[in-house]
Amino acid sequence: MTERIAILADGQLTFGDAKTAFGVIRYGTDRVVALIDRSNAGRSVSVWIAVPYEVPILATLEEALALEPTVLLIGISPTGGALPPSWRAMLLTAIRAGLSIRSGLHTFLGDDPELAAAAASAGVTITDYRRPPERRECAVGRRHLPGKRVILAVGSDCAVGKMSVSLELVRAAREGGDAAVFVPTGQTGMMIAGWGVAVDRLISDFLNGTVEWLVEDGEARGDWVFVEGQGSIDHPAYSAVTVGLIHGSTPHAMVLVHKPGLEDHDFTHVPDRVFPLAPLPLLIDLHERLASVVAPSRVVAVALNTSLIADADEARRVIAATEAETGLPCDDPFRFGPERLWPRIRAAVEALPWVDAAD
Amino acid sequence: MTERIAILADGQLTFGDAKTAFGVIRYGTDRVVALIDRSNAGRSVSVWIAVPYEVPILATLEEALALEPTVLLIGISPTGGALPPSWRAMLLTAIRAGLSIRSGLHTFLGDDPELAAAAASAGVTITDYRRPPERRECAVGRRHLPGKRVILAVGSDCAVGKMSVSLELVRAAREGGDAAVFVPTGQTGMMIAGWGVAVDRLISDFLNGTVEWLVEDGEARGDWVFVEGQGSIDHPAYSAVTVGLIHGSTPHAMVLVHKPGLEDHDFTHVPDRVFPLAPLPLLIDLHERLASVVAPSRVVAVALNTSLIADADEARRVIAATEAETGLPCDDPFRFGPERLWPRIRAAVEALPWVDAAD
Repeated sequence: MTERIAILADGQLTFGDAKTAFGVIRYGTDRVVALIDRSNAGRSVSVWIAVPYEVPILATLEEALALEPTVLLIGISPTGGALPPSWRAMLLTAIRAGLSIRSGLHTFLGDDPELAAAAASAGVTITDYRRPPERRECAVGRRHLPGKRVILAVGSDCAVGKMSVSLELVRAAREGGDAAVFVPTGQTGMMIAGWGVAVDRLISDFLNGTVEWLVEDGEARGDWVFVEGQGSIDHPAYSAVTVGLIHGSTPHAMVLVHKPGLEDHDFTHVPDRVFPLAPLPLLIDLHERLASVVAPSRVVAVALNTSLIADADEARRVIAATEAETGLPCDDPFRFGPERLWPRIRAAVEALPWVDAAD
Repeated sequence: MTERIAILADGQLTFGDAKTAFGVIRYGTDRVVALIDRSNAGRSVSVWIAVPYEVPILATLEEALALEPTVLLIGISPTGGALPPSWRAMLLTAIRAGLSIRSGLHTFLGDDPELAAAAASAGVTITDYRRPPERRECAVGRRHLPGKRVILAVGSDCAVGKMSVSLELVRAAREGGDAAVFVPTGQTGMMIAGWGVAVDRLISDFLNGTVEWLVEDGEARGDWVFVEGQGSIDHPAYSAVTVGLIHGSTPHAMVLVHKPGLEDHDFTHVPDRVFPLAPLPLLIDLHERLASVVAPSRVVAVALNTSLIADADEARRVIAATEAETGLPCDDPFRFGPERLWPRIRAAVEALPWVDAAD
């Protein structure tokens, strides 16, 4: 059954902080009927992103209920992922109105006695996307199946568009006739694709190992396996997750995602601390060195998120300059479509000496 | 009160697999009165390591009970860390005999209803060293306090001796008059030092952040802060944990620990998969590149674990060759004492331009 989703965005509806909301609107299969955000009520979602359909922004849950949603989805993810106390009353109201709850918070709403009891009474479900799987396995050094190509999206920072780039490339690959699959590794990707693991919630000892079997699941679903990346290898808070993805997925190739104009790491929880982004050539080099101590890999393209550059011609100039700087194919697959970048990535991956090589 | 410890080693009493047992005997403050290992009963612990006192190896818990232990410590750590089913009866017997339980397994014994009920009846405690702390914090980019020096032990593999090297260097530093402290990041280190966090059990999102505040705790306990390392940056299964330690502790300097003669990564749970160790110069270079994208750091020494080299003169030749190969001070601080290596490390750290630099 297709659901009708109301997304709680709670005053943080700006691109980056509300990436879950925008991802679900743009890429999800269920219909989003309302966004709830008091501070942006009445504005249009298209102020922030291109959307396939318009979604009203409302001030309160009560207004959203008039649009008959079947699901309340927590569309933002505070640093640390805990439940803001002010949301409890709203969640209880939604549950009592018959809405199921979907959450990507670190705090599991389904384990909250009051919320769980309310959900049981109302006959609705609470889905915690960050709940880790029962499988607890260390990596075993699994080899990819013959014929499979694994591509990991890596980034110069959090929230630069790794998920969107992967989803756009999957779309282009499918349109080109390849059996492509998106492997979700975060709650938003899971909400969109309906499977996956939020890897930042895993016990660290099982991070590489879980990514390994997640890729195995991906290989069962397609030939071109696009693994959603997380964080960045130089992010002070999230680098462990990033490296677990690199060494757990042992990608044949990586696509580096960057947001030109962004100067410092996403570190919104510590406003007085500044960590500049690394230069792209250094990042490319370090990714290849770090990946290759476990399995050979190469960065085969740079995908830019040019959303900070208003003028399209200027964005194209930055893309050309990045291509010159890195010597790699470059484009903004979100803004200009993935159709030009994808064939160049595909050809580069097929030419890698370790694709289908016996080791 | 000083405890009397019986260590359960269950047929795996060889160096590496039983590193907890040997660490607690060699560095712990409580007395170890017996090792329980049916397959090695009657042998001497000194077959495997130099110990400060002799410990009988007994076949059964029942024999050990005659020596009046007050604690049963789980001295081995199966890959994945689950509770082998055959241990349950033994644990119940120990609890009913009045022994407290200390465990570093991923499976928390204190959460097992049968074991917990037995412990409550017997009035004994169950300590699960891998239980994560309540604090759930992402890294905040904390600066080290002025006057503090943070040294992280890194390694070419798991179980090469990172903990022992750190403990030996702490001892040497203290004997030289420095206020040195060991920061435990694994269950064995915690059993020895009585505090710390088993970082491989942390939620990945909080790994870097927890290491950060653990180092802050270390700085409150001493000036020379030796952080226990885990895994290796090129280990297919554990690299995420290793990188979380590097970027969470932002060490001024690193000491690389290696075991000459070891050719492949510790991958005992997957015997048919071989991952050769990386050459030391490559490892040193990669550690420095990876650490420095968050905070500058340098590998200032190589500590060798020469336990695979029987002849002492040959061990010294390997140490000299490693020093020539890497251009770094090198010694085996476990076999030959830390007294020569420590002053060279100390001088190298004090000369680093980023020690006490304002940023």
